[in-house]
Amino acid sequence: MQAMYDVIVIGSGPGGSKAARLAGEMGKKVLLVEAEALGGTCTNKGCIPTKSLLHGAKLYRQVKGGESFGIVARDSSYDLAVAHRAADDVVATLRDGVALEEKTAHVEVLAGKAECLDASHVFVSGTVYETQKLIIATGSVSSVPPIPGVRQGTGVGTSDDALRLETLPKKVVIIGGGVIGIEFASYFSMLDCTVDVVEMLPEILPMMDGDVARQMRRALAPVTFHLGCTVLSVEHGVLFRRPDGTETSLEADFVLLATGRRPNYAGLEHLSLEKDRHGIVVDENMRTSIPNVWAIGDCNGRSQLAHSAATMAEVAVDDAFGSGRKKVNWRAVPWVVYSNPEAAGCGLTEAQAKAAGLSVHVASVLARFSGRTLVEEGKRAPGLVKMICDDRGTILGVHLMGPYVSEMVWGCAAAIKDNRTVNDILETVFPHPSVSEVLKECAKKLSEER
Amino acid sequence: MQAMYDVIVIGSGPGGSKAARLAGEMGKKVLLVEAEALGGTCTNKGCIPTKSLLHGAKLYRQVKGGESFGIVARDSSYDLAVAHRAADDVVATLRDGVALEEKTAHVEVLAGKAECLDASHVFVSGTVYETQKLIIATGSVSSVPPIPGVRQGTGVGTSDDALRLETLPKKVVIIGGGVIGIEFASYFSMLDCTVDVVEMLPEILPMMDGDVARQMRRALAPVTFHLGCTVLSVEHGVLFRRPDGTETSLEADFVLLATGRRPNYAGLEHLSLEKDRHGIVVDENMRTSIPNVWAIGDCNGRSQLAHSAATMAEVAVDDAFGSGRKKVNWRAVPWVVYSNPEAAGCGLTEAQAKAAGLSVHVASVLARFSGRTLVEEGKRAPGLVKMICDDRGTILGVHLMGPYVSEMVWGCAAAIKDNRTVNDILETVFPHPSVSEVLKECAKKLSEER
Repeated sequence: MQAMYDVIVIGSGPGGSKAARLAGEMGKKVLLVEAEALGGTCTNKGCIPTKSLLHGAKLYRQVKGGESFGIVARDSSYDLAVAHRAADDVVATLRDGVALEEKTAHVEVLAGKAECLDASHVFVSGTVYETQKLIIATGSVSSVPPIPGVRQGTGVGTSDDALRLETLPKKVVIIGGGVIGIEFASYFSMLDCTVDVVEMLPEILPMMDGDVARQMRRALAPVTFHLGCTVLSVEHGVLFRRPDGTETSLEADFVLLATGRRPNYAGLEHLSLEKDRHGIVVDENMRTSIPNVWAIGDCNGRSQLAHSAATMAEVAVDDAFGSGRKKVNWRAVPWVVYSNPEAAGCGLTEAQAKAAGLSVHVASVLARFSGRTLVEEGKRAPGLVKMICDDRGTILGVHLMGPYVSEMVWGCAAAIKDNRTVNDILETVFPHPSVSEVLKECAKKLSEER
Repeated sequence: MQAMYDVIVIGSGPGGSKAARLAGEMGKKVLLVEAEALGGTCTNKGCIPTKSLLHGAKLYRQVKGGESFGIVARDSSYDLAVAHRAADDVVATLRDGVALEEKTAHVEVLAGKAECLDASHVFVSGTVYETQKLIIATGSVSSVPPIPGVRQGTGVGTSDDALRLETLPKKVVIIGGGVIGIEFASYFSMLDCTVDVVEMLPEILPMMDGDVARQMRRALAPVTFHLGCTVLSVEHGVLFRRPDGTETSLEADFVLLATGRRPNYAGLEHLSLEKDRHGIVVDENMRTSIPNVWAIGDCNGRSQLAHSAATMAEVAVDDAFGSGRKKVNWRAVPWVVYSNPEAAGCGLTEAQAKAAGLSVHVASVLARFSGRTLVEEGKRAPGLVKMICDDRGTILGVHLMGPYVSEMVWGCAAAIKDNRTVNDILETVFPHPSVSEVLKECAKKLSEER
């Protein structure tokens, strides 16, 4: 039996590693247990390696599209092995970064599978560790749907497999049009693969405003989208049923299962945690149904985003060791799709705002209204900004598509958090020439139309 | 004699064109007079063409640096003529855009040199136009210093000439380390030219915090900087005197005079406008010393930025035809340097805040703290965020260098305008992985150190 910990954190993804660090910085005795690689899915198999590959693919496209700017590059090609090495390198660097940060915060890090014996005893590699409090941050795993052929097939896999491909497939079929599906669709398409996306819902990217999602599909051409379709099997190509009942089959060298992720409950079997279909049930302070046990990140199913997990970590640690007053303002959590073009947003979609019974005002402006977009992407540049406000002008949602929107959206998140109005955006001075200027133009349109 | 106008606007740059449009949208009878090309310096000879060239040069560098991401591009080179054509194309598009916007706002546009006979009569191409009110937006012209050799020299010129070069110079000497000088230094350096910058002041980019400016010089390597130096002649190369009194001569195929811009008073000779060494003197509402005459943009010398001019246009039109309550919040005007890496900022520098007698707290974080910077730019990525606040935590200034900062800075401008605190930044959820996350990390450091 080891000395008593103030808190044991299970899982070292963006949520767990942050929770451990915050508690460590408060002087608590902290044990962070990780069954796989430090940094969790985000660092090792999610955000980071995909962003490295997407960045490379964007460069590859820019080389091809750079002719009009005077770039002469003959025989340009893409070396998948080198791209994967770049991704591996940055993953290793960031993993080391997590280790260093935990060390600096005096967090003990333990490699091994954690098995919770009860709310205060955790078994790892033959030893029982005792703790006052427990933070579960076990994340999620790719959800593999029960479609005939998904298990035995070579050439069928999840995003984990997509990151380990040895050769670039000529034809890719992606099952699922969520963030992971769309980022990989963009990735493979930038590399000249033929890409089909089969989505069960009537539209891709459900958190995205419908207008933006429609434009996104157009911008991702030549990717072909099959909406409202049910996949029947992936045994010989991908067989799916269309909304009109007809069946279609697509050949594929690689079928990507991007059908979502489900909470990871490994090692939690002995805890009588309340769960629902999303994950471990938590209250506003991230407390589970068991006293002194918190659950943050993907495992509670509230939001499968790295920065959501980190925000939940702040809330849980504040509840465990601080004021207990911190809450997640879910409306002010931004999201980004790192496709080409990028999309990002924060707050409600028009449909969500209307469904909530709010009196809604809406305006949108094309991204190519911005001089910078025009300079860099040309007259046909895709993209738009859509802004949604209520009767008082309070901003309810901002939805963006176009260059650099991933780096513009934090200001929208700040505005929504602070209940800022359309007029506040109008009074802001935007640098010229920048893509961000479109926000002001959209606010102007919105204030005129209101 | 023509019908009476409500307002005549002289100059169609970002200030004049916006003033005319706003007045037109209010139903006023507006005449916009332009002596050269619609859109003014920004569109035709400033921001827009330089951003097009800089974008191309960045692509060229990325092709060269893309190897580590798997990009194979043999024999890459840069075709200056094609790059200039791209810049010309986008300039033409934006010029047409200005024309269309004015037309939509029912503004009459007149090509020709305006000569103000008095505050209500403007002479253009043989006709006198009468007006109730006059908005002067004549902009600025490159200021050519009285250095021996600057007039007669071939291979010596201003930014206007740099935009018309037919071949890429091997050796460039840039006189002046302000925004124009630094953007061209970065441009030529990205294209493998040897670049020297000779600056009279002890540091480049005076609006930039000293820490950031120092890092910027390092990041622009192999550009060589000669600070605190006085140029003596440009007759045979560039001869300059160092702070220690020694003299040095540099060879150059092209000498860029980036020694600033001075107000353009052409056509204003008959108006007894009060002027100082910056430009036409205006009050907070952009009113000049003559009733019913406003001066906006570069010609009043308050701020030589396109978006400042547009903001001044809003203030002047509001004063002329609206509430008169609008003011420019100068502290909340952001600036951007579109070099590689980019720099941007808003508010006070540390030195300015201290000089103003404020009790100042400061923190800075390296850009490579962000996972995205690490992914895209590697472990040695230059860049940082520096944040300055007062005793209450109110943000006084934010200074940024690194990828995408041009599109991040609007949120800083909004925060400074709204007197937001470091805590407000801390409570904002930033998307992961993004460069913008460094703002939160910097706010955290600042709140811990305070």
